[in-house]
Amino acid sequence: MIVGMGRWEPNARGRLEQAALELYVERGYEQTTVAEIAERAGLTERTFFRHFADKREVLFAGAGALQELLVTAVAGAPDAVAPLEAVAAALEAAGALLQERREYSRRRQSVIDANPALQERELIKLAALASALAGPLRRRGVTGPAASLTAEAGIAVFKIAFERWISETGQSDLPRLIRESLDELRTVTAGT
Amino acid sequence: MIVGMGRWEPNARGRLEQAALELYVERGYEQTTVAEIAERAGLTERTFFRHFADKREVLFAGAGALQELLVTAVAGAPDAVAPLEAVAAALEAAGALLQERREYSRRRQSVIDANPALQERELIKLAALASALAGPLRRRGVTGPAASLTAEAGIAVFKIAFERWISETGQSDLPRLIRESLDELRTVTAGT
Repeated sequence: MIVGMGRWEPNARGRLEQAALELYVERGYEQTTVAEIAERAGLTERTFFRHFADKREVLFAGAGALQELLVTAVAGAPDAVAPLEAVAAALEAAGALLQERREYSRRRQSVIDANPALQERELIKLAALASALAGPLRRRGVTGPAASLTAEAGIAVFKIAFERWISETGQSDLPRLIRESLDELRTVTAGT
Repeated sequence: MIVGMGRWEPNARGRLEQAALELYVERGYEQTTVAEIAERAGLTERTFFRHFADKREVLFAGAGALQELLVTAVAGAPDAVAPLEAVAAALEAAGALLQERREYSRRRQSVIDANPALQERELIKLAALASALAGPLRRRGVTGPAASLTAEAGIAVFKIAFERWISETGQSDLPRLIRESLDELRTVTAGT
């Protein structure tokens, strides 16, 4: 916890995220400075750096928590649950949390899509996620390539569902799209 | 074709690739200059830049040809062939070509694995490949998310097979590993 390291600011982290995203959308990611983000949030640069390593990490700060959530959920799934099903259930749980931040997620994605370096960062985070998911699968007894394939398949399912979720107009339910995307993968792989 | 743009050098491209990889392995990618690569290949810097935009592109020059081969193969598969099967057959064909360059592929991978920026570049190329593969699938009548999922699944299958191929000792058959990896994905997605 950050409390105790300096003057406590209520929800400083959330305010910085919100301010950064606003500025990235208004002025462009490249053109925005940490000083401007802090100012918009009504906080100091010092506070910014207590929460984030740099302006890029504001966009990827959620990746660590997402990874932890997924890894824990897969590790904790009952033994009788099939590996890909364990991954899908974990992704649905993560999707239910993300669901509350659709507008934020959509704007974040527009910033990333406009910047090749941020796209690369996003791909790295997804690859790291797939790699991390293979761990608990192996501990469940899934052997070598099957563990990696299950994890990669899960990430592909999530990626496609996420793209649909932020591009659809009106109501859009991420956990349901994840489930549909998994069913689609099953249809696609079953076809001969 | 390059012929006519300057003094013709027999297999200049291949010699530059070979020289670059030797130097990247010996001295590290960061420490190697284009001048050194040209010198090792017995060619001029001018000739280097006729073939490659920079020292990074030497490692990724094959990606364009690979993409073209896969897209053409998927587009040309008979209508009766299921989408994922068309992708798998295309990957096997590409694997048969790559097969002849195992030692090169292995050393190339060791250079990429040692450098985060090159890893990001590799992931971008794979993502672009998945995105390109969805094109001919859509033209075959595969609808929205199914086309992307089939393409992503194909790339995951290829990635896992490729990793096994370069890490295995002794004989190792890439097309066979691609087929095994696909079968594994089918088993994984069929499990409930």
